[in-house]
Order: sequence, then structure tokens, then C-alpha cells
Amino acid sequence: MPPLPPTIALLTDFGLADWYVAAVKGRILTALPEARLVDISHGVPACNVEAGAFLLRCVLDAMPPATLFCCVVDPGVGATRRAVCGRIGPWGYSGPDNGLATPLFEKAGDDFALYEIASPGFRAPQVSDTFHGRDLFAPAAARLAAGADPAAAGPAVTDPVILPPLDPEELSHGLLARVMLVDHFGNLVTNIARPDWEARLARRRFVIRAGPLRLTAINRTFAQAREVEALAYWGSAGMLEVAVNRGSAAESTGLRAGDSIHVDWVE
Amino acid sequence: MPPLPPTIALLTDFGLADWYVAAVKGRILTALPEARLVDISHGVPACNVEAGAFLLRCVLDAMPPATLFCCVVDPGVGATRRAVCGRIGPWGYSGPDNGLATPLFEKAGDDFALYEIASPGFRAPQVSDTFHGRDLFAPAAARLAAGADPAAAGPAVTDPVILPPLDPEELSHGLLARVMLVDHFGNLVTNIARPDWEARLARRRFVIRAGPLRLTAINRTFAQAREVEALAYWGSAGMLEVAVNRGSAAESTGLRAGDSIHVDWVE
Amino acid sequence: MPPLPPTIALLTDFGLADWYVAAVKGRILTALPEARLVDISHGVPACNVEAGAFLLRCVLDAMPPATLFCCVVDPGVGATRRAVCGRIGPWGYSGPDNGLATPLFEKAGDDFALYEIASPGFRAPQVSDTFHGRDLFAPAAARLAAGADPAAAGPAVTDPVILPPLDPEELSHGLLARVMLVDHFGNLVTNIARPDWEARLARRRFVIRAGPLRLTAINRTFAQAREVEALAYWGSAGMLEVAVNRGSAAESTGLRAGDSIHVDWVE
Repeated sequence: MPPLPPTIALLTDFGLADWYVAAVKGRILTALPEARLVDISHGVPACNVEAGAFLLRCVLDAMPPATLFCCVVDPGVGATRRAVCGRIGPWGYSGPDNGLATPLFEKAGDDFALYEIASPGFRAPQVSDTFHGRDLFAPAAARLAAGADPAAAGPAVTDPVILPPLDPEELSHGLLARVMLVDHFGNLVTNIARPDWEARLARRRFVIRAGPLRLTAINRTFAQAREVEALAYWGSAGMLEVAVNRGSAAESTGLRAGDSIHVDWVE
Repeated sequence: MPPLPPTIALLTDFGLADWYVAAVKGRILTALPEARLVDISHGVPACNVEAGAFLLRCVLDAMPPATLFCCVVDPGVGATRRAVCGRIGPWGYSGPDNGLATPLFEKAGDDFALYEIASPGFRAPQVSDTFHGRDLFAPAAARLAAGADPAAAGPAVTDPVILPPLDPEELSHGLLARVMLVDHFGNLVTNIARPDWEARLARRRFVIRAGPLRLTAINRTFAQAREVEALAYWGSAGMLEVAVNRGSAAESTGLRAGDSIHVDWVE
Repeated sequence: MPPLPPTIALLTDFGLADWYVAAVKGRILTALPEARLVDISHGVPACNVEAGAFLLRCVLDAMPPATLFCCVVDPGVGATRRAVCGRIGPWGYSGPDNGLATPLFEKAGDDFALYEIASPGFRAPQVSDTFHGRDLFAPAAARLAAGADPAAAGPAVTDPVILPPLDPEELSHGLLARVMLVDHFGNLVTNIARPDWEARLARRRFVIRAGPLRLTAINRTFAQAREVEALAYWGSAGMLEVAVNRGSAAESTGLRAGDSIHVDWVE
């Protein structure tokens, strides 16, 4: 039996009510009927490349090893940003060259081979000016999933756009962090990454200020908090999160994506 | 290896929170475990057949050639409207005979072979009075996808319900058009089709009136508009659209699906 | 050809905007690339185990015979509730032991073989304290779908948590029932089950009181009601429902999930 084609994972800001996601899937299935598709999310805030990249970062470790990411958060469609496809580390990528793939580059470093989507076989016969997800990224993803050499897609891209690191700002008296994502449960996911900060936060006393909330410890589980009590914990995305047990930290704090969260050192 | 069964594409007004979509998929997978399902949308406004047909029209060209459309926007369930399945042009269809398949008929003309879903093999052993998606359209779609002859489903349907054309009304001084769809980005998709109107609009001066907006040109890309500027363009569905670059035309205009948009000839 | 693995049906309260559903799917596909996934719903009200169990009850008969249900409505994650997998009647189950699987137990009775998810092969190498869907239930589901013996997962669970029956309360003058679910169409799905109550309701006169609505008959189809008229009927989930034809009973009554509906005997 031939090997299964790689999982194609879709991440867009298209929402689910319209026909846009289906058009991307339809074009992939037209070119590769045996394609295996999985949705990451189509709920990225419209045109918010950084938010899309953050979702990709969160889910990356849980996806199959050679997943091909077909991503469309693309405010620059029709302008000068490049449309690219190829390999970034162990993963495939088809999407705009606008920073959306940053989490892949963060893990892959210089180990990538990306190409502009220019050759006829990698794009629809007619390419619209407003929907490259359907006309460029889907056909290119199907070609890659079918085993095509991405170098056939077009000119090599050696200087892809990569977003700046997420790290919180280090101040003399603490950290200035940000809410990256308010999730479905109202949990506030920050840009304080566990690998970078767990040891440092364990070593000293601090107060986390999130809106009106003040938290002085990092819990292990929700069950350690009483009902409707606030807590901070290392979340499943590997970031520090602020939540209210069986409540909504977003409601309790009034904070939204992009807002500041402070960590003040005590003493 | 046997050939892959056709893609079964689902279009409903069920929303995604309940168990209805899963019941349709479950019944298809019960009858045909190797079925390949793809969602078009489950966000059609409740009971709005015309809106469902418009979504189908938008996505049609992007779907695989022999896609079998299993569609359930069905305000007449349990009444006298017929439940049908069969072939319309190159496509399969299983759903109500209420105009939902109009875009298929528009392309296929008289080339269709539709049958009422009446035979035991094409329907659930027990058919409810309120959920034909689960009890008729899903089993029939599975049978068709498995290669069954649709003529075995029941009596031939030679006079299917087809909705009137979408065309805008031609007035002496311009066009009276309609908003067919407000998409996720707040773009207003009209019933002015590119094949019919592009040449005519290119030949004369006009003012597009959409709520308080006045537009005198058709842009090629969003990038040609400044941020938060309104523009008209031929959208990815092949229709004239009105948008606000990085904003929402729906919010700027207050217009909703069904509202009027005017094109006034100048001179 | 090897047999197809069972359908894995997912039911969660994760919503669709975040990366949580994708992480569960990604982990399943990592372990079992040929897995066949289908979504029941990810719109269960957050942490509402009873609402999740009710959705499962509604969809159960429509799912393929040996479906493996991977369910995550899990307010007790990280606390003492057990994580279990195995067989309940003809179905597979992977999820929390918190009552979510009650509809499976109601049909299977004592015919189940459940085990705690404890062995390395059934869980992720690193198990977080907040996301057992990704770290326990998905890997266990993939193992079961691959044909593993669930007894290898861990200690047997002989006393699973089962929710109390849904039945309405019988009063001397009628029934005190509940709204279990307000669906996408605004229909009120009650806990009055057709097998238990159809004959009894057919035998006597009654008034159904749902907010300000008064209904004295049970209709067969929506088409029997005039437009914007209220009706009661045996719904597709096998429960008594109250709806407004082409309207919303939720809006007309102001009732929400958990609210009371009364059936008063006349005479």
C-alpha cells in the first residue's frame, strides 16, 4: 500500500459560516482526493497574523510529525507579500509569507526550503486577487502532500518574514507581559513561556497583576483553587495563564487579547 | 484498489452546537464507513433556502468534479415538499426539492436524473417527521456514494423546484441590486454577477450606493484601497462585492442580507 | 485489506475558536494516521457534564455501531476523578469518569469493561494537569481504535460514575419537566422521553405550560402549525419538544436550559 499522505492542517481567519473554508478544502480534495484534512481553527481574529501564529505555536507539539500546515490569515492578499510553500524543519507550509509560520521557524531555525508559488502546477488556472487560500495555498498544499518537490513551485525564498519573539519585557521591578489569547473558557494565556520563566519565577516572590486580580503563587491544577477563585498556572500551551476556576478570568478582569499583565518582584 | 467514493459535501442550517450535523454524518458513516465527508457550511440562516443556494453557488467551482451534495435547509420538512436524490449534471444531490439545488440546475440545465427517496434501502427504517437530514438525505447520500443507481430510490422527479435567477433589476437609470450575503469579514456580496456585468460596468460611469457609501470605481485588490477605505471589487464568488479595507462594510453601511444596493448610471 | 478502524467521535466543551480540538485530533492522528474522526459537538456549555451527556444521548442511535466516543467535558481535570477508557456495550469510550458516558451505560447496563488510563502506551509521555483531552483521552482513544486491549490501560473500573435518570417528576396534578437543551432553532428539548410518555399522554387531556405558552395537543409535524405558531411534538431526539414554527420558542418563552416546563392533567 502506498504511504498515507501527510495530514494537512488548516488555520484561517475565515470563520465557519461562509463558504471559504470549504473552497480551500474543495480545491485540495479536487487535486488530491485522498488528502487527510484537519482543522486547527478558523476562528483567528480577522487579519490578525500574530494571533494566528500564536495558535500555531500552541498546537504545534500535538500535531503529527510531518504535518503540512495550510494557513490563511492574509491581510496582504493581492499586494506585494509573497505566497510561499515548502518545508520548514519537519513540517510542510503553504500560505502567505507574512510571519504566520513564525512558530515553525522558531523550532526549525535555518532548516527550511521555501519557494514562491509561481508555477502553473502549484496554483489554480485562474488566480483571484482576493482569495489566495483557494487559488494558491490549497493547490500548492495538495501538490506538496502528493509528494511534489517544492523547488518546482517557483523562486526560492531565503528571507521569510518572521515575527519578533513573544517574550515579556523585563523591567527592573518585574515583567511587563501580554495577554496573547483569551480562550473559550475565558482563560488569559500570556506570553510568559514556561521553559524561559518557570525556574526564575520559582526562585523569588512575586505578585501577578491581571486587571484587578492579584496572584502570588502558581498553582498546579484548577482543583487547587476553590470555585470562582482566580489562579495562575502553567497552561497546556506551555505559557503562564490566569484563570478563574469555573468562572471566566476575561470577565473578572475585563482584559482582552493585547492587554498587559504585570509580574512585580516582591522586595 | 477500488476507486475512492465521491466527496460528500454537507450544507445545512443546523449550526454547530447541537447534535444534528453529527447525526447526519453518523448515518452516512454507518452505511458507508469509507465515506469522505467535507463541510460546506452549517451556518446557513435558519430555514433560508435562498441563502443556502447562494452559498452552494459560491463554492461550486472549487469542489471536486463529482461531489455529492447532501443539503438540508428544509423548512418544509414533514409537509408536501419532495425528498429527492440523484444526479444533477456531474454532481450528486440528496436533499429537499425546494430550490436549494438551484445552482446545480443552472449549470446542468436539463441534464439531471432525480428521484424521490421512497425505497427502503434509501431511507432509515424509521423516518421521523422533523429530521429528514438524518432519516432520508443521509441514507440516500450514502447509497449514492456507494454507487447505487438513484433510479432505485423511487419515482422520477421531472419538475424540480428551481429558484428564480438572482439578477439585479435593470432600471432606466441603473440597477437595483441586493445584498445576498454578509460574510465573516463584513463584506457585502451582491447579486451582480461578473460574467453578466463586468463588461457593461466597464463601459460607462456609475455610482454604487450602499447605505451611506458612494463608490465610483471597481478596484482589483484590497491593497488598492487605503486602510478603512471602502471599495467595490469583483469578489472570489464571481459577484460584485462592497468592502471596507481592514474594516467591515456591514458595520459602515448598516446593510444586511436582503437589503438593496443601487448602481446609478452617470449621465 | 485490513478492516477500517472504528469511527472516533469527539464531544467536548472546547468551542471551535481555540487550538484545543485540534490538539486532541492531532494526538490521535499522530498515533493512528488512518484514524477516522467525526465531530459530535464542541459546543457543550463549559464544564456542563449533564448537557454533554444529553447531547450524547440524542445522537447515539445515529452513530455507527462500534463508534469510539472520545469525550472531554471535564471540570474535574487534575483532581481525583478517574480518566478511563474501554468498552461500554458495543461502543468504545475514552474520557473522564464523571457521568458523561451515562447514555452508553443506560443502554449497555452491566456490559462494560473500563480501565483507568495509567499505562505509558495509553497516555502522552508528559501529562499536563489541565488538558487530559490531549494527554490521556486522545492517546487512549488512538490505542483502542488501533485494536489494543483496553485491559492493558490500567486498573479496572467497576463502579463508574453514572448520572441520575432524566425522568420528569410525577406530581399528583401532572409532570414537572425540564428544558434539557435549547437548540440552534430555539426549540426547547425536554426530558419527557417518548418511549415512557407517549402512550400515557395519548390517554388523557393535558395542558403543557412553557413560559407563557399553553399547548393542549401534540403535533406530528411543523407543517401542522401555522407560521409563528407554537407547537409540541415528539422530536428527533425522542423527547417532547416545544417549538415555534419558523420562530424561536426560546425567544417566545424566555426559557433556557434547566428551566421548568409543566404538564398539567385536565380534570
